[in-house]
Amino acid sequence: MADYTLFTNPMSRGQIARWALHEAGADYETELVDWAAKPKSLIDANPMGKVPTLVHHHADHIHVITEAAAICAYLADTAGPDLAPRPEERAAYYRWLFFAAGPLEQAIIAQSMGWEVAPEKQGMLGFGTFALTVDTLAQLLAGRDYICGDRFTMADVYVGSQVDWGLAFKSLPEHDAFHAYAERLRLRDAYKSAKAIDMDLIARAQNA
Amino acid sequence: MADYTLFTNPMSRGQIARWALHEAGADYETELVDWAAKPKSLIDANPMGKVPTLVHHHADHIHVITEAAAICAYLADTAGPDLAPRPEERAAYYRWLFFAAGPLEQAIIAQSMGWEVAPEKQGMLGFGTFALTVDTLAQLLAGRDYICGDRFTMADVYVGSQVDWGLAFKSLPEHDAFHAYAERLRLRDAYKSAKAIDMDLIARAQNA
Repeated sequence: MADYTLFTNPMSRGQIARWALHEAGADYETELVDWAAKPKSLIDANPMGKVPTLVHHHADHIHVITEAAAICAYLADTAGPDLAPRPEERAAYYRWLFFAAGPLEQAIIAQSMGWEVAPEKQGMLGFGTFALTVDTLAQLLAGRDYICGDRFTMADVYVGSQVDWGLAFKSLPEHDAFHAYAERLRLRDAYKSAKAIDMDLIARAQNA
Repeated sequence: MADYTLFTNPMSRGQIARWALHEAGADYETELVDWAAKPKSLIDANPMGKVPTLVHHHADHIHVITEAAAICAYLADTAGPDLAPRPEERAAYYRWLFFAAGPLEQAIIAQSMGWEVAPEKQGMLGFGTFALTVDTLAQLLAGRDYICGDRFTMADVYVGSQVDWGLAFKSLPEHDAFHAYAERLRLRDAYKSAKAIDMDLIARAQNA
């Protein structure tokens, strides 16, 4: 049995988890999840039935990890020591992982859904406004190659996926710093090998 | 100079960061932030001007951490080794930290704002529905005392704050498991000492 089982659907945030597995060089198997008929093994592991869900087969028990950002952080700690932050990188690593999983995700969703936020309620939100949130990330990336500085870490898989998708689906505005960062990530072997699998699965589904 | 500077306002998620600092037994000073006149030192550290922002003074440089959950994770790693996860606790630790910072926060905000999600768009969201998200957390807490099992970790400061606030502000539904968990946390010395400071600051502001 492989060390990890990835429950995923190629048209989902599961792409982030697959990329993380490839960066870590992890030994994994894939369980494809059909939205309309979720396998019992997925529901057993994660009653919410969300993908991606990662199962780590460890000794005589399993560990279940959900949330794409959590899967990235977990894999860095357990399977990819070079992808975990060094002590001096920890502040940026956690800060931007949670920024992307929280305020940035919320801002993109609110914008995509057309949800309006009254000015007096902006303080309730973690993101304040879409423009401020996006500009904050753009400003960071204009000044460094990777989230933690000069070196690629697992934070780049998650934050980078938000940028990559945001540009592809036009949910993020055009910005030179976003494009340059995304181009840098797309050149990585692990990105290419992971995406090739999901693109192939999508093509097969469309031709089925 | 103290090891950490906490930029906060007592009426904010800064309460989470203060509790985390007390759990870690960290040496910190507080910079109170008036929403209407944010100090330049805060904007220099975090252009978004959000609270909480934590500055770690380290040797000849500083580390800046924003996002309450990131502050918790950072403090566990740098100042509170007993609060960081053991290897077998990592899956739950990351999973539920990111669950609370992402889907749970989003679900509560959407509910509080009165934002409606059309069924065909629920798949776009990390949370799906408010009820499913809340039930998932309630189910977890019905089966264990703390997020990682039998032992309190820094994940409990962040997830626990969501539960504690959710009950206080009625943004979470009543649930025995939520009440029992919150009661367990409120008995902690670090919770009490941190909250006493913020409650005193709030009382002073109201009487000023």
